[in-house]
Amino acid sequence: MARLALSDDDKRVREWLIQQTKAVGCKVTVDQMGNIFAVRPGKHRTAAPIMMGSHLDTQPTGGRYDGILGVIAALEVLRTLHENDYHTEGDVGLVNWTNEEGSRFPIMTVASGVWAGAIPLDRAWNCTEVHSSDESKEKTMKEELERIGFLGDVPATHEAQPIAAHFELHIEQGPILEDEGRKVGVVVGAQAYQWFEVEIRGKSSHAGTTPLNARKDALLAAAKMIVASNQIAKDVGGVITTGIIQAEPSSINTVANTVRFTLDIRHPSDGVVSDMVERCREAFNLIAKQHRLLGGKAHLKRIAENAAVDFHGDCISAVEQSAAEICDQLRPHQTGAKLWRPMTSGAGHDSCQVSRKCPTAMIFAPTRDGMSHTPDEYCSPEDCAITTQVLLGAVLRYDAMRASRGDFA
Amino acid sequence: MARLALSDDDKRVREWLIQQTKAVGCKVTVDQMGNIFAVRPGKHRTAAPIMMGSHLDTQPTGGRYDGILGVIAALEVLRTLHENDYHTEGDVGLVNWTNEEGSRFPIMTVASGVWAGAIPLDRAWNCTEVHSSDESKEKTMKEELERIGFLGDVPATHEAQPIAAHFELHIEQGPILEDEGRKVGVVVGAQAYQWFEVEIRGKSSHAGTTPLNARKDALLAAAKMIVASNQIAKDVGGVITTGIIQAEPSSINTVANTVRFTLDIRHPSDGVVSDMVERCREAFNLIAKQHRLLGGKAHLKRIAENAAVDFHGDCISAVEQSAAEICDQLRPHQTGAKLWRPMTSGAGHDSCQVSRKCPTAMIFAPTRDGMSHTPDEYCSPEDCAITTQVLLGAVLRYDAMRASRGDFA
Repeated sequence: MARLALSDDDKRVREWLIQQTKAVGCKVTVDQMGNIFAVRPGKHRTAAPIMMGSHLDTQPTGGRYDGILGVIAALEVLRTLHENDYHTEGDVGLVNWTNEEGSRFPIMTVASGVWAGAIPLDRAWNCTEVHSSDESKEKTMKEELERIGFLGDVPATHEAQPIAAHFELHIEQGPILEDEGRKVGVVVGAQAYQWFEVEIRGKSSHAGTTPLNARKDALLAAAKMIVASNQIAKDVGGVITTGIIQAEPSSINTVANTVRFTLDIRHPSDGVVSDMVERCREAFNLIAKQHRLLGGKAHLKRIAENAAVDFHGDCISAVEQSAAEICDQLRPHQTGAKLWRPMTSGAGHDSCQVSRKCPTAMIFAPTRDGMSHTPDEYCSPEDCAITTQVLLGAVLRYDAMRASRGDFA
Repeated sequence: MARLALSDDDKRVREWLIQQTKAVGCKVTVDQMGNIFAVRPGKHRTAAPIMMGSHLDTQPTGGRYDGILGVIAALEVLRTLHENDYHTEGDVGLVNWTNEEGSRFPIMTVASGVWAGAIPLDRAWNCTEVHSSDESKEKTMKEELERIGFLGDVPATHEAQPIAAHFELHIEQGPILEDEGRKVGVVVGAQAYQWFEVEIRGKSSHAGTTPLNARKDALLAAAKMIVASNQIAKDVGGVITTGIIQAEPSSINTVANTVRFTLDIRHPSDGVVSDMVERCREAFNLIAKQHRLLGGKAHLKRIAENAAVDFHGDCISAVEQSAAEICDQLRPHQTGAKLWRPMTSGAGHDSCQVSRKCPTAMIFAPTRDGMSHTPDEYCSPEDCAITTQVLLGAVLRYDAMRASRGDFA
């Protein structure tokens, strides 16, 4: 699936989604960020709706599950309620968040971020697309929202469009559930992460005429830093990744004078991430000194920082009970082996933004080989059904819970 | 100095050189590769000339010494002979070799290579320039030789334009002479080297959701390979350099699936270079297996190979005796410390090509901070004078030697 946010294909699937939700009795609202809220009325209309949300946009060479599963599963839940003429206590609906991927407009979870008050509307509206072959024709989000007819009137805020609780079904995008033979991940939060650009400067010299001990080799030093950062991640049970590296002057027989590389540092605990950053800084500076790099240090520039997210106990509990019930109905291959487990999301999701403003939890579905952001991305029909069933159960439990505690009084 | 081969600036300095050499009684020949041979007749005209050669072209952002020093020093030797009305036994001259750098036309030492029969004339003539902003206008060497008026009639061969012995003064381009406080390098040969492009393939996965032990991280593996290759170079007293590295897909939060990097492997012995290559291959394959890379191995593609060069004993001896005499006249700062030393060239030079067809040796001059291929390249006026004096003495010794052994009989 290649469906970049606010493209013609995105317009088409949005129109289809509105049609489908209206067909099961939903009332649809589109906000200033093109977020689509489809709400099916409950017995009581005095409280905000429980929403099931995710996104329909994909990476340029994406799969058919990342985000899409969460919206389609939500639609299936609404259809199931409708077909069974089931009346929830309060309103229940689905939300399609705009441009979660940040692929076309390079701010991830931008529209749920605006809704949650974390990203200013103007910054989002003025965000310019990447991937255009002609720079002079690059469009802003606002221009494209307008063009495809999804620039709504309703403010993209949690005040204008409140949500009582948010549940998101998503593929795991990792190998853990599959490796452990489980069917459902009960997501209790998301890892903290910090991103850095590291720059180190040595000195160019001739690869043939400069003895090893006379070099200030920035690329050799960078290699040692990448190896050291991996050891630090191992030591504390986190993950550190270098995905980008550039060396200058990039000549086969010239020692590199400047190397820039990235660090993606993650752990469920904010404190451990900070600790990992400090350990990297120390290790890098030691390597920089050993290689006599300029300034005797590595320059770390933080380009992103996300605190750990703890989802809401009430939502987690609803998912957990639902998962336990559904899994009990399946026959585990190994006696006594639980088919679900609590886990922490390694990636960021719309739910991380939404959780700033309302109780939230997520459900993870197994992902073949942990592959995501590729056409090979896959979740079996059986696993899609099981986790959608868990979503339905979680929503109904939360709906019952808030009725019993008097939310509609 | 930015004087790319066969540019208008190169034309200008070539015309100046011809004028200067004619002014000191030289006869000038230009061959099919634009090599300029300026020969000052000796007492006997029955043998090929002793030539002092180097190059006047530079890197795009080059210095004022690399190559240039050798040609200007040769001119100074000829002027000195002329001003002193000194008649050598045989012919003595200078040669300016075309496009040594390989910067504009990407074959290094191409014109001395054609002369020595190592590179076919057609391949050299058809070599197309790099660095052009408009690909459709990129010129071949032959077109540019013709344009600047230096496409000579004489075949660019050692048979048509024989040389009795070749001496080249060049900056060291390394830090050894300076670090050891010496004035002259007596170059006895050039290192063997092999160049490789290494490609390794792992698997892309999400930097947040993929545990370290589930990764096939090509960039982490590449970093370990670069560190391992450096250790191998240390172990055998050679040098290994990685100057170029590229990672795909080059995304901050995606584990790299493919990394390509280069290896420049050098040592004075062919056998040790082969051994270093094999040790790298073994170490890389072990790392590839540990990181479960595709095929369980690293793919090494050899893109260049140059055997070690041993210069000629007679030429080395002439340079050594000259260096010893000149250095004895200087006052060493430390009593007993020799101001010259034998050394092996780390880089390739025209002399490496020329040595295939005639006795050859080189003289190295100290290079500030070992810097070369940069505007900061520097050799003090004193050191330029000392090494030019060594060049003069070496040529006169060789001239006397061949007279005494009967070359002119």
